[in-house]
Amino acid sequence: MATTVVVNGTILTGENGAVPLERGWLLIEDELIEAVGDGDPPDAESVIDAAGMLVVPGFVNAHTHLCMIYGRSLGSDRGLLQWLGDEQIPIMRALEPHDYELSMRLGAVENLKAGNTTVCEVFFSPHYDASVDQISAAALDASGIRSVLFRCTNDEAFFEGFVEDRRDIVRRLEDLHARWPNAGRTRVGGGPLVPWGSSAGSFRDLVALSSDRRFPLHLHTAETPEYNDLVRERTGRTNVEMLADVGALGPSVMLNHGVHLSERDIALIAEAGSPVIHDPTSNMLLGSGVAPIPQLRSAEVVIGLGCDGPACNNGQDMFENMKYAALLQKVVARQADVLVAEEVFRMATAGGAAAIGLGDRLGRLVPGFLADVVLVDASGPHMTPMHDPLASLVYSARGSDVDTVLVGGKVVVRHGEVQTVDEERVVRDVAERARVVRGRA
Amino acid sequence: MATTVVVNGTILTGENGAVPLERGWLLIEDELIEAVGDGDPPDAESVIDAAGMLVVPGFVNAHTHLCMIYGRSLGSDRGLLQWLGDEQIPIMRALEPHDYELSMRLGAVENLKAGNTTVCEVFFSPHYDASVDQISAAALDASGIRSVLFRCTNDEAFFEGFVEDRRDIVRRLEDLHARWPNAGRTRVGGGPLVPWGSSAGSFRDLVALSSDRRFPLHLHTAETPEYNDLVRERTGRTNVEMLADVGALGPSVMLNHGVHLSERDIALIAEAGSPVIHDPTSNMLLGSGVAPIPQLRSAEVVIGLGCDGPACNNGQDMFENMKYAALLQKVVARQADVLVAEEVFRMATAGGAAAIGLGDRLGRLVPGFLADVVLVDASGPHMTPMHDPLASLVYSARGSDVDTVLVGGKVVVRHGEVQTVDEERVVRDVAERARVVRGRA
Repeated sequence: MATTVVVNGTILTGENGAVPLERGWLLIEDELIEAVGDGDPPDAESVIDAAGMLVVPGFVNAHTHLCMIYGRSLGSDRGLLQWLGDEQIPIMRALEPHDYELSMRLGAVENLKAGNTTVCEVFFSPHYDASVDQISAAALDASGIRSVLFRCTNDEAFFEGFVEDRRDIVRRLEDLHARWPNAGRTRVGGGPLVPWGSSAGSFRDLVALSSDRRFPLHLHTAETPEYNDLVRERTGRTNVEMLADVGALGPSVMLNHGVHLSERDIALIAEAGSPVIHDPTSNMLLGSGVAPIPQLRSAEVVIGLGCDGPACNNGQDMFENMKYAALLQKVVARQADVLVAEEVFRMATAGGAAAIGLGDRLGRLVPGFLADVVLVDASGPHMTPMHDPLASLVYSARGSDVDTVLVGGKVVVRHGEVQTVDEERVVRDVAERARVVRGRA
Repeated sequence: MATTVVVNGTILTGENGAVPLERGWLLIEDELIEAVGDGDPPDAESVIDAAGMLVVPGFVNAHTHLCMIYGRSLGSDRGLLQWLGDEQIPIMRALEPHDYELSMRLGAVENLKAGNTTVCEVFFSPHYDASVDQISAAALDASGIRSVLFRCTNDEAFFEGFVEDRRDIVRRLEDLHARWPNAGRTRVGGGPLVPWGSSAGSFRDLVALSSDRRFPLHLHTAETPEYNDLVRERTGRTNVEMLADVGALGPSVMLNHGVHLSERDIALIAEAGSPVIHDPTSNMLLGSGVAPIPQLRSAEVVIGLGCDGPACNNGQDMFENMKYAALLQKVVARQADVLVAEEVFRMATAGGAAAIGLGDRLGRLVPGFLADVVLVDASGPHMTPMHDPLASLVYSARGSDVDTVLVGGKVVVRHGEVQTVDEERVVRDVAERARVVRGRA
């Protein structure tokens, strides 16, 4: 049994209302947290000194598209559908199988360095024949990050080349799940990519498969008014009403974005117990709108936070995303306490963990939970003084302050350096390949 | 004559519509930019290699309160007046003269490391008898940053101990200006701190002094609806109408915040030629509101960007602030092109320079301008790939990517290390003193 103790840090366990533990310690055995306390630490085989650092649960980046990383900074300052159709889809068409491996590696490096120990990769592609979903899951796994790869696709209406046959969707998702079952760091989920592009039958296939294999679904939901318009044209219902109709709401169905929701939509979501993933930075950058987070909280909906893809954010920094989440609600409500630091911190950790069905094992630093742990250097001038560790974490810290990251008890980032991937090489390779691919797009 | 050439970078000159210069060079002679170009660089005494970097004009942080740096992370998640009165004013009362030196040093380190080569310090204090304004100007100067220290105070209504006699305001501002005249890196300006706390006579004193000595004024303006309410109680007018009435509008009067402006207010500002400083991050964090930036742009008002104080942001990162400026307008207008990357970049550089009366000498990388230059490392995973250098700068880069900073041709940050101040020591000293001071507050 391998034991590690993290000592001398200020520990924010992520539990509701918990006071930070100064000179705290955290004992890890294999992949689990064994004990947490302050004062004199217990012995262990290895010791990690966290003096001057905040020790926090790893962040759950509950929605991203690393498959779009080659499109970062392409087509900026445009609205969602124009940005997607004119700029992003062409470059995605020109990718080759090897590019998926590079995309996932670069994305994993970026996420890990920013303290995101889990990513929900909402994966889509026009190249499934080449097993790019399998390639991607393997590349994420090799990077040491915790991930759920949601294989998302449509059987009816989306961009040409991005539509799969209903039977292929099920077959390929079964294959992917067979290789990456519900255990270990790398897991699989599914879902239609966009809500107006799938038949009711395909929604039902996926709900049945999700229920049978016990994996989560992930659905883009009510991101823009056009989402509701397009769904209404097909079904006469709002996006959420349509999902309720086809049986695609429930605790294992993550609704991503949830910006343009009616009161009835919120009631349906709350009643069914679907978690909502909030992507404030992306919603702002694309001009999509402001999600009704206070209303969803009042309805006791589980909320996670997503950075969204590197092409529509343009980063994978949960510190940035937490601050955006809080500040956007404050300015819209014109009320500074409408969403506070502690709440967004919990959305970014325990909320995301609950949304992917791991709420009892991930997202807090408590005994028995998975040891996904981040040490944040609090010694920078921008963090000084620190009267309130939680406020400093959410409003002052940034991804570049992350010093050390453990996933399942294993050190994957140490003093800012990723231990599992050759960062310089993957950066160089992606820069080069992105030039080539764009030239062909 | 000392010459330096910056080579191999991608140069963003900050000129309207300018295409980035790949493999660009920048020749500096003493404190000025001598020439800019691409291809083979000219010879110089020293060479700075900017391979893999973006080379941009230094940012002008056009509104901050480094005098409040001890209050960082104190009283988070509260609205402006509660946060100020309950948390910030008590700690400011407990400061000692030496604390001002430490505050300015720490603030200068933080700003320089993030690429802010100029700061507008909107300075206020209850300890003027101890010459804390002089101490602060000297500490900023010693740090190597370019600054305008706006000595801001009120002669009538503000917090107890923060109100000065009208004659003292003029006398002490004259003294400060005598020591730091309109030349060199360190300059002086003035202004009432809040608009409802000054007599019309004091406004007129300051306008006369500003005109006589040719220095700028800086006024908190229409930050919250309460600003307008408080001014209206005294004068029957909106904040901006009152300023017009007392003759306190014009090109040398910087209006900070400008959130709650009527159409008539905007017309008055535009007609008088007052620049407006926009502080989006602070306005969001305090729940103050959304400034009408598109309307101010349509009226051709000069706009600069301010991080606002470390106590109400909670950082001094202009990259963060540029992204907030763009994203806030996009989500409010629900239109992704309402404020684009290039425009916020120019607000953060040339706009701020113009606002402090240095538009013909600062804020762009063109011959004859002051050599305030920032090299931004673009090799990180979060900056890869970089299809659009300007979008990457505004939407992906962060303060921690700043590698090298020159102010007036002198290297003040090299490979992320401040050359002019002992960073570790000032961080340690402020952390310790903030604990002591807060204990007394």
